[in-house]
Amino acid sequence: MCSLQFVLKSRGISQYVVLLLNCWFICLEITRWVICGLIGFLTGLIACMIDIAVEKLAGYKYLAVKQNIEKYTELGGLSISLILWAVLNSAFVMLGSLAVAFLEPIAAGSGIPQIKCFLNGVKIPRVVRLKTLVIKVFGVICSVAGGLAVGKEGPMIHSGAVVAAGVSQGRSTSLKKDFKIFEYFRRDTEKRDFVSAGAAAGVSAAFGAPVGGVLFSLEEGASFWNQLLTWRIFFASMVSTFTLNFFLSIYHGKPGQLSSPGLINFGRFDSDVSSVFIVFRGVLGALFNIINYWLTIFRIRYIHRPCLQVMEAMLVAAVTATVSFAMIYFSNDCQPLGQDNTEEYPLQLFCADGEYNSMATAFFNTPERSVRSLFHNPPGTYNPVTLGVFTLAYFALAVWTYGLTVSAGVFIPSLLIGAAWGRLFGILLSFIASSQSIWADPGKYALIGAAAQLGGIVRMTLSLTVILVEATGNVTYGFPIMLVLMTAKIVGDYFIEGRSRIPGGLYDVHIKLQSVPFLHWDAPPTSHWLTAREVMSSPVTCFNRVEKVGRIVDVLSNTSTNHNGFPVVSDTTENDEPGKICGLILRSQLIVLLKHKVFVERASSRLSQRRLQLKDFRDAYPRFPPIQSIHVSQDERECMMDLTEFMNPTPYTVPQETSLPRVFKLFRALGLRHLVVVDNENRVVGLVTRKDLARYHVGKDGLEELHLAQT
Amino acid sequence: MCSLQFVLKSRGISQYVVLLLNCWFICLEITRWVICGLIGFLTGLIACMIDIAVEKLAGYKYLAVKQNIEKYTELGGLSISLILWAVLNSAFVMLGSLAVAFLEPIAAGSGIPQIKCFLNGVKIPRVVRLKTLVIKVFGVICSVAGGLAVGKEGPMIHSGAVVAAGVSQGRSTSLKKDFKIFEYFRRDTEKRDFVSAGAAAGVSAAFGAPVGGVLFSLEEGASFWNQLLTWRIFFASMVSTFTLNFFLSIYHGKPGQLSSPGLINFGRFDSDVSSVFIVFRGVLGALFNIINYWLTIFRIRYIHRPCLQVMEAMLVAAVTATVSFAMIYFSNDCQPLGQDNTEEYPLQLFCADGEYNSMATAFFNTPERSVRSLFHNPPGTYNPVTLGVFTLAYFALAVWTYGLTVSAGVFIPSLLIGAAWGRLFGILLSFIASSQSIWADPGKYALIGAAAQLGGIVRMTLSLTVILVEATGNVTYGFPIMLVLMTAKIVGDYFIEGRSRIPGGLYDVHIKLQSVPFLHWDAPPTSHWLTAREVMSSPVTCFNRVEKVGRIVDVLSNTSTNHNGFPVVSDTTENDEPGKICGLILRSQLIVLLKHKVFVERASSRLSQRRLQLKDFRDAYPRFPPIQSIHVSQDERECMMDLTEFMNPTPYTVPQETSLPRVFKLFRALGLRHLVVVDNENRVVGLVTRKDLARYHVGKDGLEELHLAQT
Repeated sequence: MCSLQFVLKSRGISQYVVLLLNCWFICLEITRWVICGLIGFLTGLIACMIDIAVEKLAGYKYLAVKQNIEKYTELGGLSISLILWAVLNSAFVMLGSLAVAFLEPIAAGSGIPQIKCFLNGVKIPRVVRLKTLVIKVFGVICSVAGGLAVGKEGPMIHSGAVVAAGVSQGRSTSLKKDFKIFEYFRRDTEKRDFVSAGAAAGVSAAFGAPVGGVLFSLEEGASFWNQLLTWRIFFASMVSTFTLNFFLSIYHGKPGQLSSPGLINFGRFDSDVSSVFIVFRGVLGALFNIINYWLTIFRIRYIHRPCLQVMEAMLVAAVTATVSFAMIYFSNDCQPLGQDNTEEYPLQLFCADGEYNSMATAFFNTPERSVRSLFHNPPGTYNPVTLGVFTLAYFALAVWTYGLTVSAGVFIPSLLIGAAWGRLFGILLSFIASSQSIWADPGKYALIGAAAQLGGIVRMTLSLTVILVEATGNVTYGFPIMLVLMTAKIVGDYFIEGRSRIPGGLYDVHIKLQSVPFLHWDAPPTSHWLTAREVMSSPVTCFNRVEKVGRIVDVLSNTSTNHNGFPVVSDTTENDEPGKICGLILRSQLIVLLKHKVFVERASSRLSQRRLQLKDFRDAYPRFPPIQSIHVSQDERECMMDLTEFMNPTPYTVPQETSLPRVFKLFRALGLRHLVVVDNENRVVGLVTRKDLARYHVGKDGLEELHLAQT
Repeated sequence: MCSLQFVLKSRGISQYVVLLLNCWFICLEITRWVICGLIGFLTGLIACMIDIAVEKLAGYKYLAVKQNIEKYTELGGLSISLILWAVLNSAFVMLGSLAVAFLEPIAAGSGIPQIKCFLNGVKIPRVVRLKTLVIKVFGVICSVAGGLAVGKEGPMIHSGAVVAAGVSQGRSTSLKKDFKIFEYFRRDTEKRDFVSAGAAAGVSAAFGAPVGGVLFSLEEGASFWNQLLTWRIFFASMVSTFTLNFFLSIYHGKPGQLSSPGLINFGRFDSDVSSVFIVFRGVLGALFNIINYWLTIFRIRYIHRPCLQVMEAMLVAAVTATVSFAMIYFSNDCQPLGQDNTEEYPLQLFCADGEYNSMATAFFNTPERSVRSLFHNPPGTYNPVTLGVFTLAYFALAVWTYGLTVSAGVFIPSLLIGAAWGRLFGILLSFIASSQSIWADPGKYALIGAAAQLGGIVRMTLSLTVILVEATGNVTYGFPIMLVLMTAKIVGDYFIEGRSRIPGGLYDVHIKLQSVPFLHWDAPPTSHWLTAREVMSSPVTCFNRVEKVGRIVDVLSNTSTNHNGFPVVSDTTENDEPGKICGLILRSQLIVLLKHKVFVERASSRLSQRRLQLKDFRDAYPRFPPIQSIHVSQDERECMMDLTEFMNPTPYTVPQETSLPRVFKLFRALGLRHLVVVDNENRVVGLVTRKDLARYHVGKDGLEELHLAQT
């Protein structure tokens, strides 16, 4: 597959060629760095744009509603305010939902499950197109401004990935424009590398956590740890957070005061963590996932028409506004207005002058701000009852919201629920321990609670710890946060999903619902005595070195065997005995060959015909035409095709006695898609694909699968 | 090699066995976590111990010298003070150097090159023994307390690695004690995983940078990115920094005030980085490496007797004291003593009352404190001339010191030189730009200068950025630090070493000097048209499935072919034609088999003989007896040995046309040591080992090697 192997088949090259090649490799590497820088820059810009747009829109909305409420508080027609609020919310959400439902359904949700699959090596159509990006950005602005219980952080990861895919390919199908640059990178592995850089840049911009971004990409995507690649990913992340920081500082009128590295900033915590505790919040997180699982199944079954989806989204928006309003209305938790006035929209409502309604702080605000106030407001800001009711209401809303046909993330709602719950716990603890000063700061409980809730929902341990540590800017919190996340994961994994058979994190739930052949990190422990022979697909469709065009077309057209890779064998196998392996050729390569009619007969008859070049393969990437679109006449069907110079001459093979864990390791470590299984005469006996492996990877259900395999 | 494959050869196992196995795997995983926690805890404790010991000893020393100086400043016999200082320094250094030179020479230096090699898969004898640890800790306390231009951070990494190797094996050869626990982990791969966790814990304790530690381990060691392993490494790092933090807070009398996560803390920087610049400091870093390279060669040639080594170390200590004293003596840079009194040992000398000698701040202090004051002292604290002279003197001392027969790290001296130089630059810039406030804080230049100097010397980009970002506690500095490090690396790599043929970083210099077969990340770019056939060692010594004991003994005893892995072939090869591959057996396995005399004849004659078990292999690990120690009688030489059930039945193989980059990738991604090369009949034609690959990996010398390969 490597172009060099194509070009330099002939040996005895002069030293100048070698020198030239060296230069070429250096240029290539520099280009990769430049692309990564661009990816980071553009991702940072997009994050900045989203942030400013949301802030402006939400600002106008809250101002209008606030003035309206203030007007009607005395007059006594608050239902009008409620209606205004609900209508404003629904209008925003409708816009976003319409765009998503009718123009690009793949832009719904946070996009993280899709990116996880993409990085895992599973192709999902349309996920990294420019159109998806535009809809996503528009959708997320609408849904956050519309007051839904969602965050704008998850979509940033998807946005970064799309930017990366677009920039690195140097062309856009949506715009029908080919810039004729970066053509070397038009292949799966390179594209995937850039997409992981983009995802990292997205995380970095969302949370101001460049290292967390790198670890996220590695945790989800990379299998082979390549140092240079990691540096590039890190570079993209750094550029991204720096760009965001820089432009936001200009927007806030303080250029150079780089104080907002991410879309959400937790503010700084000091180092005193003597008051750290561990909450077993995995249970609540798991509950979230289970309810959401059933809800999503319900949605897949009944709400599959775009109109219905838009209406559901609007309904949720209106209900959110109503619930918020009711909570604020019925709460009588008044707090004195501080002179520093940290609240941007303090609602007085029925409170005395100089006081404000504290429930309104939580609801009448973008979720990011609410999280910050839960973390940092001084003790005594919140009434425990207020917090309790808020947690429950927000939990219900968040569960309902995730999975709607809008672009939205689940990070911030999780953090908010956890922070509220954690702060509540902290307040209760301080009641019990009365006047002990070490229990003094409920903001820290809020932080730990937020970590636990988020961990229970998404079940990432490593990258999440780093993201949270970077967001708090204090490494001392790392250890408690890590313990909490691990506890949440273990509790969630073993006590809840272990029984209900719903996979771990929320993203895995959604991946499972889309039934994607997702490969996990390790082979299941019970697979040690399964061998390649039992896992492989067999019999395999093989081609000869020189194969009849008719047979190739037939095989490719046969929908029941839609394989993507075909072993090439050396001698014809008349008597059903498998032939000796001599290469592997991909469906896409065959299609390009057929399209250009690279037949043996033609080559000899018309010498002038231009040789097929690497460029032809690249230009067709990544949307190879389907076999049906290629017309092959009856005459041509009788021609022969010589696959020798196009196939991969040294595909990875394993003997059929190889154990499943070893096969698994090869797949993961080398990023394989096909592995040829041979007997000890090097004859092809089977082919292991991702699907074969994914079938055997079921974690706790290993027993059952084993049983199936043995019968 | 996997025990399961040994145990469960027979199929049709009941479900209970599967359940049991599942439990066993979970137990194993829990044990791994417990071990990692222990590693982190012990590493943190050791770091704490070193810190306290150094602080106490250095404190006594400086106090004594200070009193002496104060006494003689007026009397006028300062040469006595100088002698006192030099003697004290030399005494400390002598103790440390004696221990290292006579008891455990491998404990010299920072140990980072050795750990790099270990993680790369190269075995270096005695590097992870308990004795090495004890000497290392003692040595580093002595050399830092002895005032050498060294740091205690590098040795922490080595210490962490030794702790890990010891704890994970559950026994100690130095103590001759076997705790009979963790026997499952007595194998190369598991041990290496734990050692990487230990190294990470060491970095984490040294710099308070747990994420940096993880990345260091990954950058240097891991090739296959395993998620669970990374979590464990992260866990060990977290525990380590937390332990250190906790115990130091108790030591400082403020339990719970967790403010010292690492041995060195940069203190907190605020976010205003508008005054960031890039210094091309790679040149100076490279200069350091080149001088040190020649010096080390000189040392290897001439100073190889322990006595000489100790004397050199003492000489350096005395010279350091003299130079420092002279600098302080001839400097007349007096600064007013602030009321906050940040200096611990302010020396008045010839300054007016209420002032102190600012040169003394830099020299009369542990290097960690000096770095901190360079970063954080307010503008105007230092005179530019003082700084310039200090930089030059300290540079010379540091170059001379690294490579002495003492335990010592190079991080802190590099940081100190860079910080001084950077601050100097900052001050000069503020002279030029006169009263502009944005150039105001030279402390930031100090930080950037420190990063550049360190980057130029050690040439790590990724993990160093993260370590420095974590140490400063501000993610905003990440981008400038990364740019500086990259610049330093590029400048250093291309403009200096590109011509002088000395490899990149200081550690690589020392690795090269020890001529270790170190594998880099990628195959050299010019290797694309080399194939496995040209790289492999050939002919290969193969064994038959059932082989004569005499032949095995002869092959193992033959020192000219000291291979470690032998392919096992199916049919005897009388006519020199290679046999078909059916397995791979290791030297160590053969030795254990010979030791236990597992001969075919014996098995049939004495049925009562106990079967050889996995345990026998584990107990012998890692110090397998040499072949000479195994006595095989003439009769026994005629016996046969059946290798079938002990060999690895499915070794990784490649066809001989495989390109070198692909071979390289397999080696790195799967952590191989041997790769069997076969022809298309599956006959063994060669064997690729690490040495074969290392020979072809020479970066910029690719041309020459290629030439060699073609002739």
